Amino acid sequence: MKLLNVDTIEEVQKKLKSYFQTASAQIEMVPLRQSVGRYLGEDIFSDVDMPQFRRSVVDGYAVLAKDTFGVSDSMPVFLEVAGTVDMGKACDIVLEPGQAVYVPTGGMLPQGSDSMVMIEYIEKLDEKTIAVYKPAAPNSKIMNPGDDFRKNEILFSKGHRIAAKDIGLLAAVGKAEVPVLRKPKMSILSTGDEIIEISEIPKPGEIRDINSSAVAAFAEKTGVDVRSVAIVEDSYEKLRIAVEEALKESDLVVLSGGSSAGAKDMTAEIIDSLGEPGVITHGIAMKPGKPTIIGVLAQKAQDSAEGINCQNHCCKLVVGLPGHPMAAIIVYEVVVSSFIKQYYFHHKEEPITVTAAITENIHAGEGRETYQLVSLKRDDALQWIAEPIHAKSGSISQLMLADGFVRIPSLSEGIDAKSRVEVVLF
Amino acid sequence: MKLLNVDTIEEVQKKLKSYFQTASAQIEMVPLRQSVGRYLGEDIFSDVDMPQFRRSVVDGYAVLAKDTFGVSDSMPVFLEVAGTVDMGKACDIVLEPGQAVYVPTGGMLPQGSDSMVMIEYIEKLDEKTIAVYKPAAPNSKIMNPGDDFRKNEILFSKGHRIAAKDIGLLAAVGKAEVPVLRKPKMSILSTGDEIIEISEIPKPGEIRDINSSAVAAFAEKTGVDVRSVAIVEDSYEKLRIAVEEALKESDLVVLSGGSSAGAKDMTAEIIDSLGEPGVITHGIAMKPGKPTIIGVLAQKAQDSAEGINCQNHCCKLVVGLPGHPMAAIIVYEVVVSSFIKQYYFHHKEEPITVTAAITENIHAGEGRETYQLVSLKRDDALQWIAEPIHAKSGSISQLMLADGFVRIPSLSEGIDAKSRVEVVLF
Repeated sequence: MKLLNVDTIEEVQKKLKSYFQTASAQIEMVPLRQSVGRYLGEDIFSDVDMPQFRRSVVDGYAVLAKDTFGVSDSMPVFLEVAGTVDMGKACDIVLEPGQAVYVPTGGMLPQGSDSMVMIEYIEKLDEKTIAVYKPAAPNSKIMNPGDDFRKNEILFSKGHRIAAKDIGLLAAVGKAEVPVLRKPKMSILSTGDEIIEISEIPKPGEIRDINSSAVAAFAEKTGVDVRSVAIVEDSYEKLRIAVEEALKESDLVVLSGGSSAGAKDMTAEIIDSLGEPGVITHGIAMKPGKPTIIGVLAQKAQDSAEGINCQNHCCKLVVGLPGHPMAAIIVYEVVVSSFIKQYYFHHKEEPITVTAAITENIHAGEGRETYQLVSLKRDDALQWIAEPIHAKSGSISQLMLADGFVRIPSLSEGIDAKSRVEVVLF
Repeated sequence: MKLLNVDTIEEVQKKLKSYFQTASAQIEMVPLRQSVGRYLGEDIFSDVDMPQFRRSVVDGYAVLAKDTFGVSDSMPVFLEVAGTVDMGKACDIVLEPGQAVYVPTGGMLPQGSDSMVMIEYIEKLDEKTIAVYKPAAPNSKIMNPGDDFRKNEILFSKGHRIAAKDIGLLAAVGKAEVPVLRKPKMSILSTGDEIIEISEIPKPGEIRDINSSAVAAFAEKTGVDVRSVAIVEDSYEKLRIAVEEALKESDLVVLSGGSSAGAKDMTAEIIDSLGEPGVITHGIAMKPGKPTIIGVLAQKAQDSAEGINCQNHCCKLVVGLPGHPMAAIIVYEVVVSSFIKQYYFHHKEEPITVTAAITENIHAGEGRETYQLVSLKRDDALQWIAEPIHAKSGSISQLMLADGFVRIPSLSEGIDAKSRVEVVLF
């Protein structure tokens, strides 16, 4: 067994960065609506001015603004109706001074006009004449070409995670299909002789496979393609074969369970037996999450899973998560998920956090970053308060109460009750 | 054309409630991991005590606590090793005073023991004897049956939206498949002669179909099954046939576009021609979003789309959204989405909002609730500030900058700069 040199999270990130830098993820095209939740594979530029043409934003008459200067309810101006603009059609009318042209919302303004008068301020006298009762300033109630954005403007950067609110803009610039980064593939292996399938009824000593589904759900939330989830017996040979097989089809292999010291040693030995450099981190200075093993295995390019384009070689990540469900999830979110976002998705955007007053003191871990689960509630003044969730280390039910977590740096003196904290939402 | 009696949002909700109360959504079973984002179709109860058995949370020896009272580094107690517990197996050893049994993390404690001593505080003298250097309190380092939750405890309520963090607990209680509410089916029709497919290059006067994809993305985010998205010409007969067809396969039909007054009238006429009660709201007192049309059509049960189980009749919703993209999205989120969550998903949970200081005064609309898009930023003290997004009404690019919106009640005097607001996140 290797010496238990526990790494800080920063040290882990630095080590990972040194191995995972030569590969670049491949791009695939997906239909626009299926792109929600995916990460952009390239920068997105506009292919048109928006709007492309001078457009009315109201129903009314296009006019030359100076024809309407000085008019009022009691003193209208009379204009000649020179025509009507059809929706979706180019307008070939040229408006002369003293004329007006009917334009519906979204319609194209005729040449020579410079503003719109809303239908409410118009009286139609006959087929050829209207009275205008309100003056229009030049450029009022219209959008000029490029008012919204210009052709070749950058709208989204590579690595941006596409949200529902982005779909309209992608549609506006013609992205019926969107270039997104391929999802890395992950296999999750649940180890332990006590672990049974979720659908089974546990006998004394047995426990259902909680962690692998929980981790899979968090991985899928990050945008990972979880290929397989399997329970493996706690035997060196069986586990080694399972990890080897998983590495063939996946970019990442996550081992869940095996809380005991012996199981951890076995996991580390198996990782080391499968390639170089093997285990790079045997324990992380975080609380919870200390018994985390991280291994890196360099593969020849041709062995790598489809989806990652290696230059010289590909590295694959093997992570042995802590056995306790809450610790496994926190390590996944803090270490694995942020690695995946950075390395596979080129994603740099910070999540929105909620500022809240913490209800109790939280102690800093000795030399370890502490991640405290909290649930958010409103106080009487409708401000957010964060209540720490206290749970025995084997508890699973408490995770569902958590809205997120608070990070307490290892060198701090902890957090005093009532002070403001940033809650990272799940 | 009907009189433009504009309804408040509360009036709209009240009207909808009066029509949509007899139906109850059907339940379908989905595999556990696919249940993320779905709404529970029934309450979920635990089927086991968790843990089911007295379980160690450390690697070490099960002992009788009082055998260790008073021991110290310099004065250990010597205990006889009575055996080893295997993971996943029931333990049939009965521990006698003066004995200890090895139990790995997660293993079952033998009868007669009442606490665990961690391996760090043990010295193994020979195969049959250990020295214990630290006293154990009764119940230390163990979980008793039901410590986490008890059998038949309610864990989740019907209508709860399943999150990634819930998957572990659902696994723990054996939900390999989860009962969820069927998704309502929605058709989205984009109307307007100026609208072209996203993949086309717009000619002067034309515009790509922005709204229907944007609305579809928001609908899918809510959990709706968007069946079809189509562009329909601005003709009474064609639009009427399209709505009629859409009603056959969908529970909800959304019409997008048709900003002009004439197009709105046509939409209302078509809804009225298709059944009773027809248009129930012709304009909502909200800003943006006033030109919204809401129609309800009562259907016989056998005509209704699969998925909704009607008692006497089914009502279907037809919504004509405003033409401007941002207005369409705000109306969808504030009116349609909240209706869907309430009626189809029995979902009552409030979203988490972010409290922020607004950077500018926002005026209340005269007699209309105002929804102001904002983007969130950090100030120097790392507090959230909300910057109102000012955009011409036809703008689409500004929506992507928005992190959410702030609601200003119609009867308020607006919001002063620097005051705190609640931002509903997109």
